[in-house]
Amino acid sequence: MRRYEEIQIGERAVLRRRITSEDIEKYAEVSGDVNPLHLDDEYAKKTIFGRRIAHGMLTAGLISNLLGNVLPGPGTVYLSQELKFKAPVYPGDLVEVEVEVIAKEDAKKRLRLKTLCRNEEGKTVLEGEAQVMVP
Amino acid sequence: MRRYEEIQIGERAVLRRRITSEDIEKYAEVSGDVNPLHLDDEYAKKTIFGRRIAHGMLTAGLISNLLGNVLPGPGTVYLSQELKFKAPVYPGDLVEVEVEVIAKEDAKKRLRLKTLCRNEEGKTVLEGEAQVMVP
Repeated sequence: MRRYEEIQIGERAVLRRRITSEDIEKYAEVSGDVNPLHLDDEYAKKTIFGRRIAHGMLTAGLISNLLGNVLPGPGTVYLSQELKFKAPVYPGDLVEVEVEVIAKEDAKKRLRLKTLCRNEEGKTVLEGEAQVMVP
Repeated sequence: MRRYEEIQIGERAVLRRRITSEDIEKYAEVSGDVNPLHLDDEYAKKTIFGRRIAHGMLTAGLISNLLGNVLPGPGTVYLSQELKFKAPVYPGDLVEVEVEVIAKEDAKKRLRLKTLCRNEEGKTVLEGEAQVMVP
């Protein structure tokens, strides 16, 4: 894990990950969220989305991935996350997640990060802010 | 799914679900978040938590479960979620999730809900607010 002192405001990390139909099914199992909007083609066809979409919280997991693996990295303690689901993610979409350090709170070794997910067309699908501790 | 008009401010729903070690491993696969705090006993022993903890975003998935299955139920469109991770969830913990409708925005068929997760001792592990659309 990165040392708190080394991390600079403005520092960024990015990851790209394809959200597959299989991921959606596995996530439905783990979370128990079996909303047909995510799992049932026939049902989803009749909704405003026109087809199945990924669980918003599945896409949000990619933020957790990037925080926990890269910036700040292994050992990160997640304190808070604000999520605004702006547009749907469809099965097969390649999602790019970016986190950027926007503030540091030295006394508590805390970071605030802007968190953003985009689809392949560059459209923002999820945005918000995270707060983490770097112990 | 419940009709928007039927849903009252003050309405609540609750679910209980045990978060198992297997859930944590499956979630690590789905999200790609392999932070050793969640997966590695030896590593976790040396942290402030003393042992492995569940991914915060895995616990958060139970909120998505309750919104998507019960209140408002199947078809719910998730608009936003604020998450404050207040205390760790350990493998094997039984988590109780509660959502309560705190506001309605009729023009857009949107609900605001207070979202709360507690462990078996009644301690709040996760709190925040959700916004959903009931199409």
